[in-house]
Amino acid sequence: MMRKAAIVGVGLTKFGELWDLSFRKMMIEAGTRALEDAGIDGRQIDAMYVGNMSAGQFIEQEHVASLIVDHAGLTPIPCTRVEAACASGGVALRQAAIAVASGIHDIVVAAGIEKMTDILTGATTEALASASDREWEAYVGVTFPGLYALMARRHMYEFGTTEEQMAMVAVKNHRNACLNPYAQYHTEITVEEVMSSAPVAQPLKVLDCSPITDGAACVILAPADMAKQFTDTPVIIEGTGQASDTISLHDRPTLTGLRAAQEAARTAYKMARVEPEDIDLAEVHDCFTIAEIMAIEDLGFCKKGEGGKLTEQGETSIGGKIPINTGGGLKGKGHPVGATGIAQAVEIVLQLRGEAGKRQVNGAEVGLTHNVGGSGGTAVVHIFKRGD
Amino acid sequence: MMRKAAIVGVGLTKFGELWDLSFRKMMIEAGTRALEDAGIDGRQIDAMYVGNMSAGQFIEQEHVASLIVDHAGLTPIPCTRVEAACASGGVALRQAAIAVASGIHDIVVAAGIEKMTDILTGATTEALASASDREWEAYVGVTFPGLYALMARRHMYEFGTTEEQMAMVAVKNHRNACLNPYAQYHTEITVEEVMSSAPVAQPLKVLDCSPITDGAACVILAPADMAKQFTDTPVIIEGTGQASDTISLHDRPTLTGLRAAQEAARTAYKMARVEPEDIDLAEVHDCFTIAEIMAIEDLGFCKKGEGGKLTEQGETSIGGKIPINTGGGLKGKGHPVGATGIAQAVEIVLQLRGEAGKRQVNGAEVGLTHNVGGSGGTAVVHIFKRGD
Repeated sequence: MMRKAAIVGVGLTKFGELWDLSFRKMMIEAGTRALEDAGIDGRQIDAMYVGNMSAGQFIEQEHVASLIVDHAGLTPIPCTRVEAACASGGVALRQAAIAVASGIHDIVVAAGIEKMTDILTGATTEALASASDREWEAYVGVTFPGLYALMARRHMYEFGTTEEQMAMVAVKNHRNACLNPYAQYHTEITVEEVMSSAPVAQPLKVLDCSPITDGAACVILAPADMAKQFTDTPVIIEGTGQASDTISLHDRPTLTGLRAAQEAARTAYKMARVEPEDIDLAEVHDCFTIAEIMAIEDLGFCKKGEGGKLTEQGETSIGGKIPINTGGGLKGKGHPVGATGIAQAVEIVLQLRGEAGKRQVNGAEVGLTHNVGGSGGTAVVHIFKRGD
Repeated sequence: MMRKAAIVGVGLTKFGELWDLSFRKMMIEAGTRALEDAGIDGRQIDAMYVGNMSAGQFIEQEHVASLIVDHAGLTPIPCTRVEAACASGGVALRQAAIAVASGIHDIVVAAGIEKMTDILTGATTEALASASDREWEAYVGVTFPGLYALMARRHMYEFGTTEEQMAMVAVKNHRNACLNPYAQYHTEITVEEVMSSAPVAQPLKVLDCSPITDGAACVILAPADMAKQFTDTPVIIEGTGQASDTISLHDRPTLTGLRAAQEAARTAYKMARVEPEDIDLAEVHDCFTIAEIMAIEDLGFCKKGEGGKLTEQGETSIGGKIPINTGGGLKGKGHPVGATGIAQAVEIVLQLRGEAGKRQVNGAEVGLTHNVGGSGGTAVVHIFKRGD
């Protein structure tokens, strides 16, 4: 890549069931906060990218990039929606970074948004199932909890991972979410509560699953060499990797890791010239608790099969060897699918700036985000460093 | 932009009601033809972009980039879906060109696809309406023919444009489509037939409207300085412009032109260092006949208000001053919404190579594509030159 991008402003809505905020208003709220944070005027923005999975099915609205740039008052700049299921936000961030690198634009917004609660619950699950292979998976009745349950069973069988270890992921992420004012849940939970919660797709119980969430998130990118004009604490995007895998589970040689995530991580590490040991903290895609365990293995924070143990040892908690999902993760912060990849970047930026309040990781200088689409058909990994 | 891209391979499916081709098979067919045309192996491809408007609503499938890269056998390369309603294809082409410019990828596929006929007819119109503002337009009953009928009425009122002039657009585009083996319609029509066809939203009649179509299209990009490795006749993307406007008509100061198209054209002309007079032929977004008349005005091929007259004088026919929609346009070739922007580029490439058969424009060296999302909330313009 020819020109590095830096994040100079971030903004979020509260995540949750936002009955009083429409799709368009959510985006404006997150965007306004990002502009204020960057201390810039909307007229300085050259282009926007928006990650959104399925406004078409959730609120019968396509062409959301047009809707958003209009209601943000930013016409006639180009605004482009990208979609990669639950990785839509991460892909939007990547496209924004590529646009900056190309030289075609300087100041570029990367946003993510999903309005998921203005629909019947069954219809939400049905829309989410459209991230899997409609003909070979969803049509025969497999839902997303079902797909991840298959992965969990195999992980337990091959590596001895336990349901309690998975529960510990949820417990940690709820604990972190309590420290994040934007998180959907501000309630601590216990391993016993997770274990005795209602089964969804065994071995996954309801407290192993990320929730249905409304939310929007926004980051503002500038060329790294211009970033100091906007902020004393730019965060540089040092590496970006995106990769794909078969959309269906049945075509993969293994169920205990996501090849797309492994490949995206390899690309991002190489571009950033760092190793897993150099990462101070990571926001990973814990759509289900087993997904976080697989993620920390796929990212190289431990050996394949040891993610459950690493969690049990407390090494993924704040203060541990590699704090994971300090913002609360998808489980505790909430998972507005198109917004998640951007919200992950917001958390890393706050941490690298030293602005993460009670959940601050001391001395954090290098952070990573890991965003997965569907059951791993798409994965995006970004690596960030605090600018000097 | 730092590095120019060239198109080195093109491929299309037949456009029409493709009962025997599923979504995934359409994409493979178009992609395989593009690979054969470029004479390259799929393993040389570094990344893909796919334009698709609404597989979510049409076939209940999101995450289509994952589906496509999987079924093309090209995992683990990154594949990204972009959506901008009927401009999805044009936006995909632009993102592919930006990716090449950034240096992150060399060989990049830009594809477009839509499967529109596997659904009840009313549901298709309803899904298409989600390209307009759901809350301020679609919810109160306005459909796309209704929005363009408003524009047509105002154009007639301000400039004296006639229904017969609009009909002549359809007649010309059907005539061109008869010369294009990939077109949906191979039937010539007359002005009288258009005038006496069933009203859809007055003054627009059914033969003023582009059809519902299945189809896929694909182009392969390489850095311009590598293009000669693949073909003796590369086509260089000299300019790209994308712009936005309010999504709703009621917020615009005028209904007789699309500001997004004017702005996108200005950007593309400037980047390519050409003027409207330098363009030898153009593929424009004739979703309705009035849209072609507005397009040729917005692109500067005639003064505002004179598009109807230019059409009546035959100057937009093959052999005229500025041949428009030699491939048959959306009206005659068909309009699989996400594929249209790419299919326009395919036609320009064939023309600039001198491979357009009976519809060849003699001596064509510079071509333009004009792709519109919704009622003009998004527009994308590309300018192409025959490489030396």
